[in-house]
Amino acid sequence: MKIAISQIEIIPSMPCDNTVRIISAISSAKKNNADIIVFPELCVSGYMLGDMWESKGFINECEELGEEIIKSSKGIYVIFGNVASDKSKKNFDGRLRKYNALFVAKDGKLIHNNINNYPFIIKSLLPNYKEFEDPRHFFSLKDLAFENNADIKEYLKPLEIECNGEKIKLGLTICEDAWSSNYSFSPMDIINSNKDVDLFINISSSPYTLVKDTKRHKMYGEIASKHNTPLVYVNNVGIQNNGKTVYTFDGGSAVYDNKGNLLLTGNRYEDDVYYIEMDIKNKSYPKPIEIQEDDEYKFIYDTVIYGIRKFTKSIGVNKIVIGVSGGIDSALSSAMYVSALGKDNVFLVNMPSKFNSNTTKDLAKTLADNLGCSYMVVPIQESVDYTVKQLESSPIIKDGNENYLKLSSFVIENIQARDRSSRILSAIAASIGGVFTCNANKTETMVGYSTMYGDSAGFFACLADLWKYQIYGLAKYVNEKVFGREIIPEGTINIVPSAELSTAQAVDEGKGDPIKYDYHDYLFKFLMESWNRIILEDVLELYINDKLEEAIGCQKGILNKYFETAHDFVDDLEKWWKQFMGMGITKRIQAPPILAISRRSFGFGNREAQNRVYYTARYLYLKNKLLNLD
Amino acid sequence: MKIAISQIEIIPSMPCDNTVRIISAISSAKKNNADIIVFPELCVSGYMLGDMWESKGFINECEELGEEIIKSSKGIYVIFGNVASDKSKKNFDGRLRKYNALFVAKDGKLIHNNINNYPFIIKSLLPNYKEFEDPRHFFSLKDLAFENNADIKEYLKPLEIECNGEKIKLGLTICEDAWSSNYSFSPMDIINSNKDVDLFINISSSPYTLVKDTKRHKMYGEIASKHNTPLVYVNNVGIQNNGKTVYTFDGGSAVYDNKGNLLLTGNRYEDDVYYIEMDIKNKSYPKPIEIQEDDEYKFIYDTVIYGIRKFTKSIGVNKIVIGVSGGIDSALSSAMYVSALGKDNVFLVNMPSKFNSNTTKDLAKTLADNLGCSYMVVPIQESVDYTVKQLESSPIIKDGNENYLKLSSFVIENIQARDRSSRILSAIAASIGGVFTCNANKTETMVGYSTMYGDSAGFFACLADLWKYQIYGLAKYVNEKVFGREIIPEGTINIVPSAELSTAQAVDEGKGDPIKYDYHDYLFKFLMESWNRIILEDVLELYINDKLEEAIGCQKGILNKYFETAHDFVDDLEKWWKQFMGMGITKRIQAPPILAISRRSFGFGNREAQNRVYYTARYLYLKNKLLNLD
Repeated sequence: MKIAISQIEIIPSMPCDNTVRIISAISSAKKNNADIIVFPELCVSGYMLGDMWESKGFINECEELGEEIIKSSKGIYVIFGNVASDKSKKNFDGRLRKYNALFVAKDGKLIHNNINNYPFIIKSLLPNYKEFEDPRHFFSLKDLAFENNADIKEYLKPLEIECNGEKIKLGLTICEDAWSSNYSFSPMDIINSNKDVDLFINISSSPYTLVKDTKRHKMYGEIASKHNTPLVYVNNVGIQNNGKTVYTFDGGSAVYDNKGNLLLTGNRYEDDVYYIEMDIKNKSYPKPIEIQEDDEYKFIYDTVIYGIRKFTKSIGVNKIVIGVSGGIDSALSSAMYVSALGKDNVFLVNMPSKFNSNTTKDLAKTLADNLGCSYMVVPIQESVDYTVKQLESSPIIKDGNENYLKLSSFVIENIQARDRSSRILSAIAASIGGVFTCNANKTETMVGYSTMYGDSAGFFACLADLWKYQIYGLAKYVNEKVFGREIIPEGTINIVPSAELSTAQAVDEGKGDPIKYDYHDYLFKFLMESWNRIILEDVLELYINDKLEEAIGCQKGILNKYFETAHDFVDDLEKWWKQFMGMGITKRIQAPPILAISRRSFGFGNREAQNRVYYTARYLYLKNKLLNLD
Repeated sequence: MKIAISQIEIIPSMPCDNTVRIISAISSAKKNNADIIVFPELCVSGYMLGDMWESKGFINECEELGEEIIKSSKGIYVIFGNVASDKSKKNFDGRLRKYNALFVAKDGKLIHNNINNYPFIIKSLLPNYKEFEDPRHFFSLKDLAFENNADIKEYLKPLEIECNGEKIKLGLTICEDAWSSNYSFSPMDIINSNKDVDLFINISSSPYTLVKDTKRHKMYGEIASKHNTPLVYVNNVGIQNNGKTVYTFDGGSAVYDNKGNLLLTGNRYEDDVYYIEMDIKNKSYPKPIEIQEDDEYKFIYDTVIYGIRKFTKSIGVNKIVIGVSGGIDSALSSAMYVSALGKDNVFLVNMPSKFNSNTTKDLAKTLADNLGCSYMVVPIQESVDYTVKQLESSPIIKDGNENYLKLSSFVIENIQARDRSSRILSAIAASIGGVFTCNANKTETMVGYSTMYGDSAGFFACLADLWKYQIYGLAKYVNEKVFGREIIPEGTINIVPSAELSTAQAVDEGKGDPIKYDYHDYLFKFLMESWNRIILEDVLELYINDKLEEAIGCQKGILNKYFETAHDFVDDLEKWWKQFMGMGITKRIQAPPILAISRRSFGFGNREAQNRVYYTARYLYLKNKLLNLD
């Protein structure tokens, strides 16, 4: 039996275009004499569509295009995911009943077990965490069983097909149905409860996040070996977004034999159809291949490059303006955009004030020379001085009296940041028909260490899911592995990170950001990316028990290096917690879309309310105890 | 039996503060000899907390505070909503099992039916649409029945209490359990399946949207009369948010007799405890009262004022800077902030360029005089000219060559808008320790008719869920009903709406915005607020059948007034659709939090992906047919 694994790119909310490419893949599979071709979950519509699922017309379009796919199944089994509606029933929200469904077609007809009179298979488990919200739009097989007072076991059966004269029982599931360990039942276990499944097929639309690839191979391999049954996993490539967060889909489609050995895997981010021949009845498979574990930075690099290419294409821009300060974030951003789109599409702008050192101005120039991009120097001091003077000399009139503003040095710091982004970069971008980037990293995004409408602005924040240490790691990777030479100047990598907005941040005197990256990166990551959300009482308890450094994964001795007393530690902790839960949220609400890399990026997958900062009773108790003993 | 209806303010994510106020309400209810006091759903934690539900420490805090509430129930039945966890079980996401629960306490003990060994009642129906996402964090009673292979009917029983020597059966439900018409079962019908419920109590945390009040009275009254059983509905007041959208909770708690007549209702947005005495066994109730149907604009006015007061308090600011152009949006915004916070906290700034007419400059000044606020004029022409000159004279260096930018008039238009918000208003706000407002309305927010980091910026968009016609309606209401005199100048109300960013928008020549508000307001509302999402094929079909004006609710004859041919109509339709689904989304991703007024506001309750603009096959078919016949 020859199976075509169609790891195609799905463009969300473009059903007609997706269908054209699906039908073309079917034709090439026929030419290659495949018996079965398998497409990903929701391959007609795409997966992340916001509330477009609430349009009956759109659902109708997807179903009609599904009919076209079914028609094109002459001589081949076509397995694909699509939305399926039931006009006689309602969803919980009162709107049209919709299922996230899997269709099996051959010779223009659907093959099915007639469950609840439906000619398709329904997703049983609907994920509802992080960026996922399937139950907002879809009715699950579980819900259907409940509604009909039926046993879910009656609804989950293998589907028999005939292939080259042999009867083959397929165990067909959709994405989360395989990730069942937290649910009250396992769809795959139930489908194979009679031990008669010959081949599992799981179709997915599964966004990539760091280390997910390894996790997937492990889990699917274990399912195959547990059931002594081969398994085909098909995932799409492309990017999709939910507004605030942009997700890449890496494909990573794979086939496992009945022992769970990997037989084939799709290349990351490659839109392609892969073929495999297996004699399932005789358990004869191709030779297993090794699971390749990539370098963390290769993963990140591939994802950022793919994200930039696809996101800019999807919004129809290719001219990119980047403000370069001589620092690491903007330098890395420049190198990534040049790698992704070419040097002729990237436009670098250095915007010094009187606080910017010659050191960083030279580094910005060197970067531009190394990359070969267009380069412009637009100083901001005159404009900033003008603004200060204008505001301080314009009378405020109230009740016939005149008063005048006095701008503090902190206010003037932020005027500089906004002058750069909102006055200069925005206008340059508009005048060349392009956009300007947000170069923020995750560390500063977490605590709002940025100026709104200043450095927190931009069309896309492709590095904002990387901690500062990952920014450095990726910069080194880019120099060594991508360009093979010093593109990002060593000076930029070695200089103290600094916003250079005042004399207190003079880099040549070693002065810089208030963030102690070798500690805060790890503390913030612990707060943000732990599976169960961490709050201050958890941190303080670890600190008191001398287990904090180990828990957050920073170097040993860091706490002693930075904090002389427990008081100092607590002050620092509360300072950043307030920033994280206060101004950090305020700024993230208006931040650009972030490219997701980690398992929890800011944005849609990390729901936040702009509420008051709260300390639990347990935290206050631990703190009082600690500080009284101090 | 005397019941205390505790319509208290709940501050989200402040469990300790909420509990203190809950316990204080219990003590005053005791003093007033109440037999029962009822609090809203999730009154310890608040309802909209983002993913803070994922913290075990936070859940623990809420449960411990719940114990304090239980302890304070000596001599009184205390009914309240709180999160309840089960450490031995998992939610679908693998995290701690949590229920949205109702507790009944008396004399320090919980009274319960011991369903599944739990001493509390579990919410059966979990809303998962618009801003609601209960199933993301909570396990429903329905899920529990499914997990245990139990019949939901076994789990939904009245709870018997003894009150003044009488046995009373309570039908206890939480919010959505009453709004069951789209679900496969009705919790209230099941609880009363033996017709033995003496009193229904529904505790809610239900955000206010336009006309919801009337809908609530109708629905709860019908439940009471259908079951021939009185009903107590308790909802909180306050504001809560999910980041992008801020919701007000109006209270509107109510009591209905067994015929569904309204006996008592809490005042809108009033934090208070109301009392009612009823002899339930003898069906003796106080005299019914009339349902007051308020003027639409009174509702809107109350909501915006309450939203401004609570939101500014919650983020800890009270100094408000408003850019006033002489136009209607900024004038209304100014009047609302002055109404909410007083004239001494509002700071008006007029920022004319050479395109601003004396007409609008004078109107801005008149507004400031009428309101008595601090007023400042900060012209922007010099700064805009400087920016244009600086950018056009700074060399762009590439490969040793120099080039220069040339800024188009469109680019210069947007430079003006950003100069106002990002250069001037941001700096003034920072220097007085305040914030500046976003004065956007819903019509421009929908199609992105604004400049990013310009007029779309600000700390809060309190009018961005009001269509332009509602902006005018509210302005008239404010003049006539609130101030009782012309605060918003007539000239501002009568002038053509215009951005005044170029000579093409000269108000004295009657030139203004490209939006035809008397048509587009209604078209956009139809696209945005219809229950089923409307797409272009729906609009075009109505147009072809000559039913569009009626469907969208605009004046008759508008289409003929604006469109000479079907071509013109289609061009206009596609132009704004592209804006709505394209730049509109891009801008909304970075827009400030919006105060929700309508049943669908932009933001968290209206999920959007930044995807390509798509036309369905049916739309293209209809369009081709129409235009070929044209």
